[in-house]
Amino acid sequence: MVQKFICGNLSTGPDGHLFFAGQDTVELAQKYGTPLYLMDEDLIRAKCRLFSRCMEKYFGGRGNILYASKAASFKRIYEIMREESMCVDVVSPGEIYTALKAGFPLERAWFHSNNKSDEDISFAMDHGVGFFVAESFEELIAIDKAALDRGSKQKVLLRITPGIDTHTFEAVDTGKVDSKFGYAIETGQAEEFLQLALSLKNIDLQGFHCHVGSQLFDSDVFIRSARIMLDFMANIKEVYGYEAQQLNLGGGFGVPYVISDPEPDIERIMKETADEIRSLCDRYGLEMPEIGFEPGRCMVADAGLTLYTVGMVKKIPGFINYVSVDGGMTDNPRYALYGAEYTVLPADRMGDECKMISSVVGRCCESGDIIQPGVPMPETMKRGDLVAVCTTGAYNYSMASNYNRVPRPPIVMLSQGKNYVAVRRESLDDMVMLDE
Amino acid sequence: MVQKFICGNLSTGPDGHLFFAGQDTVELAQKYGTPLYLMDEDLIRAKCRLFSRCMEKYFGGRGNILYASKAASFKRIYEIMREESMCVDVVSPGEIYTALKAGFPLERAWFHSNNKSDEDISFAMDHGVGFFVAESFEELIAIDKAALDRGSKQKVLLRITPGIDTHTFEAVDTGKVDSKFGYAIETGQAEEFLQLALSLKNIDLQGFHCHVGSQLFDSDVFIRSARIMLDFMANIKEVYGYEAQQLNLGGGFGVPYVISDPEPDIERIMKETADEIRSLCDRYGLEMPEIGFEPGRCMVADAGLTLYTVGMVKKIPGFINYVSVDGGMTDNPRYALYGAEYTVLPADRMGDECKMISSVVGRCCESGDIIQPGVPMPETMKRGDLVAVCTTGAYNYSMASNYNRVPRPPIVMLSQGKNYVAVRRESLDDMVMLDE
Repeated sequence: MVQKFICGNLSTGPDGHLFFAGQDTVELAQKYGTPLYLMDEDLIRAKCRLFSRCMEKYFGGRGNILYASKAASFKRIYEIMREESMCVDVVSPGEIYTALKAGFPLERAWFHSNNKSDEDISFAMDHGVGFFVAESFEELIAIDKAALDRGSKQKVLLRITPGIDTHTFEAVDTGKVDSKFGYAIETGQAEEFLQLALSLKNIDLQGFHCHVGSQLFDSDVFIRSARIMLDFMANIKEVYGYEAQQLNLGGGFGVPYVISDPEPDIERIMKETADEIRSLCDRYGLEMPEIGFEPGRCMVADAGLTLYTVGMVKKIPGFINYVSVDGGMTDNPRYALYGAEYTVLPADRMGDECKMISSVVGRCCESGDIIQPGVPMPETMKRGDLVAVCTTGAYNYSMASNYNRVPRPPIVMLSQGKNYVAVRRESLDDMVMLDE
Repeated sequence: MVQKFICGNLSTGPDGHLFFAGQDTVELAQKYGTPLYLMDEDLIRAKCRLFSRCMEKYFGGRGNILYASKAASFKRIYEIMREESMCVDVVSPGEIYTALKAGFPLERAWFHSNNKSDEDISFAMDHGVGFFVAESFEELIAIDKAALDRGSKQKVLLRITPGIDTHTFEAVDTGKVDSKFGYAIETGQAEEFLQLALSLKNIDLQGFHCHVGSQLFDSDVFIRSARIMLDFMANIKEVYGYEAQQLNLGGGFGVPYVISDPEPDIERIMKETADEIRSLCDRYGLEMPEIGFEPGRCMVADAGLTLYTVGMVKKIPGFINYVSVDGGMTDNPRYALYGAEYTVLPADRMGDECKMISSVVGRCCESGDIIQPGVPMPETMKRGDLVAVCTTGAYNYSMASNYNRVPRPPIVMLSQGKNYVAVRRESLDDMVMLDE
């Protein structure tokens, strides 16, 4: 049987074992235990190079690719980004500190978050974070004050909401007028925000930032964002004589989670967006700004896979079946949060026919602890078998909790046939460490 | 203005500061920083004593009150439970280990979880956990084997689903036939489960466990569960001659989160359930079993309050307003997960009129990071102000994550006018500790 896999780095070995990044998942589970996050380092590096190449080819290198590190934030990933000459988007002192520990050059970091406290701002400045993306009037004033206190000027981008409703699901729909992020053009607040920025002596205004959606599979939203933003920038130039050096269009590049999802063509999206921006700049008489993109999910999602051991297979006559595993919403809360879809595979029984439709559920004492409903599993599945959940590289480890006092799994990186621990397994002692 | 508060331990000081458990929240925020979890130790102890008194008074002491520690699991809470002579329900080696660190006598612990691995079973047995609540055939066999290996017999309750649909929302609706927990009576699987338990030499069958719902405000569901379970137990006695010593009816005692929620009368629920059980036992000719209850949420929810500092107040003309705070779904994911309701108060402006309807949102780079929409806040609110979210003692700290690499807040206990740290604030170094 030739199987179509959700990711190109999956295959089946002759013994019915699932292989990931060319390595036997059953052997990896034995070596490291379960639950276990695996990450395909080579795929992450390939994505970095694809984006960098597109930036070079279509934007003439005028811009930056920022890895949106909230998707997966740990020391090793910032080392990889450093080695690949990427920039990063960080959203908290925690991410900044982790990047720092990895020796990441923070002048290539952009600091996001709709709620930067005075302490956060000081922390980021004192560690030399290159750019702040300001989200509100109060925050911009606080950034200016912190820069004044240091006798410096802080490079800042203003977060603007272009007012696009992408009709993706609400939780990840961030570019509408009604948003906690930035200010909208159509309410006039974006212009007030600019006026404030231009009036503050310790703000070195670099340009504008917007981010519209998530799980975008073609260039449409990037192009619409670029049109709105460049139109805004042309007006601003006319009225205020201010010409932005940077336009950051955010991220949102889609990732297929199930076979029916489209496969985004990143190169085509980058090319079409570049063509549009170039022609818009020509039309408006603007010099082409440095364009920023912030891929997060698409950099790491399909580079990740989670392995679990089955604890129980419960067949309820007349009802659905349950396959229960040793992890769950603690290491992957995305079904519980969003009803997110995943492809789930029987990692040690890839040759067996999958006809038992099952809810694959986690170990938490909570009915909502579901990894994925409606999964075809083999009738032969039993306690001790291995289950793989694909495309878990983004927003799994980063969102993990200790609910039910379950320790967080380790992250094992796979590269060129080798494997190594990037994040170690949390121990029981680690979990009680904060308890006085 | 006389204000009706959601919890009896809230009040307003003369300076417009919110007081919690008799202490000034503004002073506590200054002393410990924000975000900050506060817990009213005296209220937790009062709840323990209320349940213990009801057990004594209505069940003649024939039974146990098990604190369902997944609601809030940290060392200090198990110390309090030990001091109050409570039993506990634990769901993982992590909870067992935390209880152990608190010197909790584990012979008074019941071990739940739909997915106990062989390692979990060994861990619990080696640490002398009193009772296992078995969830599946495979698990029961594994428990028997582990006990055999140790030359012991393990006291076990069987988890049974009584088939009640409580029409509460799906994620916490656990007593239906279609459930990952236990086996249903009506499918015949509960009886098979019993047969298996009786056949296993190293299983000391103590009785049955069920848990039907969450946020129950009267005795109805407990009574219906008791009827179904006692009917089952009477049949079992007749057919197999097995008479259960224990019947655990689980938890689910409701907690008001907003003013419109009912206030459960725990004493009445306990009394009515006891009366029903007594009359059912008489009718069936059963000796009254030891009755277990597992209050979790209601023991700690209203003993908790979270304090945040406001980072931004964003008023969008023609749209809603945003009040953004320095925590969010990282320390309280319950709105993101369930759309859970909360009462939110302006802790340093309790005297100000609240007419600005606002979404109180968290600091994460995610639109779904909402603590509560539709909150009336004062027009005067600004960066640096303090916001209190009430009734956060259950499923807040226990579900907290490091999403966006945000550290988890400390838990400060309040008791008799004093305050102390029970769980310390997570540091940046703590967060990178697992990174290799």
